[in-house]
Amino acid sequence: MHWARFRRGDHVGYGQLEGDSLKVYSGDIFDGASPTGQTVKAAEVELMTPCDPSKMICLWNNFHALAAKLEVAEPPEPLWFLKAPSAFTAGGTTIRRPGSYDGPVVYEGELGIVIGKECRGISEDQAAEHIFGYTCVNDVTAAKIIQKDPTFAQWARAKSYDGFGAFGPMIATDLDPMTLSIRTVLNGDERQNYPVADMIFPPHRLVSLLSHDMTLLPGDVIACGTSIGVGSMKQPKNEVSIVIDGIGALINTYLNE
Amino acid sequence: MHWARFRRGDHVGYGQLEGDSLKVYSGDIFDGASPTGQTVKAAEVELMTPCDPSKMICLWNNFHALAAKLEVAEPPEPLWFLKAPSAFTAGGTTIRRPGSYDGPVVYEGELGIVIGKECRGISEDQAAEHIFGYTCVNDVTAAKIIQKDPTFAQWARAKSYDGFGAFGPMIATDLDPMTLSIRTVLNGDERQNYPVADMIFPPHRLVSLLSHDMTLLPGDVIACGTSIGVGSMKQPKNEVSIVIDGIGALINTYLNE
Repeated sequence: MHWARFRRGDHVGYGQLEGDSLKVYSGDIFDGASPTGQTVKAAEVELMTPCDPSKMICLWNNFHALAAKLEVAEPPEPLWFLKAPSAFTAGGTTIRRPGSYDGPVVYEGELGIVIGKECRGISEDQAAEHIFGYTCVNDVTAAKIIQKDPTFAQWARAKSYDGFGAFGPMIATDLDPMTLSIRTVLNGDERQNYPVADMIFPPHRLVSLLSHDMTLLPGDVIACGTSIGVGSMKQPKNEVSIVIDGIGALINTYLNE
Repeated sequence: MHWARFRRGDHVGYGQLEGDSLKVYSGDIFDGASPTGQTVKAAEVELMTPCDPSKMICLWNNFHALAAKLEVAEPPEPLWFLKAPSAFTAGGTTIRRPGSYDGPVVYEGELGIVIGKECRGISEDQAAEHIFGYTCVNDVTAAKIIQKDPTFAQWARAKSYDGFGAFGPMIATDLDPMTLSIRTVLNGDERQNYPVADMIFPPHRLVSLLSHDMTLLPGDVIACGTSIGVGSMKQPKNEVSIVIDGIGALINTYLNE
């Protein structure tokens, strides 16, 4: 199933995709939503981020191929930072260069895990029942900020400018994440195409390990890190898509001006 | 004025301190709450965190005295990380050692700025009108996590274990933050006592600069960083208080067992 969150006038609701329509639900998808009997055309509503995470946990160095390319050691534990919720944006929006930054802005196509049930300290075997589904993430990054200060790596700042946390367009359930591949298409050219199977900490293991660091809540998103092919969005106007077959395509405009 | 958020049965509400009572308000204090005419005894309700921040932005290296002691350069821009909302806890609660960590757990007494109005890209002169008030923060830290991995400083992880983001007990308004001092008292001994006036980026400047990194929202908290006197909580059971005259005392129990 594919779950969307949409706005129509003042109303915000959840819908389940059926063809080109959304079957409208009332209530919270993480707590037993029920169908209202209505449907809306997907093209006639504004799709929002498919949930409203209390936190987005973002992995660094989680792919064998990228660790090898960058010649960095593979970590013994997940290495992560947090992205500010004020950075979240849905598919279809325009992301703009921050006024205070003139360096390269890069896309990072990633798989997002959406937590379905509160969990802490769970085992890898318990992870699947605590995952609601999966979505596409573009972990947009002001690349030169990260190492700008020699005393302090600025991960959160580089990745928390308004609009730098794009995710969606929907949450897909009932998938085996290990079969998925993440593609990034920039202005019509495929720039990333890598399999989830290459993850150092694959999804179920990641949810278990992170749940030992802190409580994970329904709607929280884990952005699983990116792999090779990251690059900057150099055109005045760029179309950037994160495409995961089985989930969908997260398409945003990025403006350099 | 001093604003508290409290729970009584199923009801969560805001109250304004008058003597040992809270004058109860309905609505959102960031959006024009109004008095209900009721009062409750402060001792008879459960005080919650005084607001529900969408993000807590935490400063590193923001005091002249601590930079000198650690012999680190004073930064040209604020250096910050984010603390997960799942770490937030109110005064009066018990914070526990994470099961997965056996190193020192340290207190860091800090001033917290509570944002009152949405802002982005504002000047230092505009900061005061966007600040709702000030609170006490204990930026609890699993100190050995930060530099545990040689390739990636784990600021967010070290500071986001459940309960590691204590703040409260109330938000004080109509204060000049530059006159305040932050004291930390551990098991009856004063361990920190430092003035806000020693900040490298003082509150109004900080709000302006951070609002150029991202949108700040009503209820967001900026933990202004700590100064000298940080130390670990070594007793099996510790009482740790962050005391700011003019705001109040944030008192928590920390259990090592």
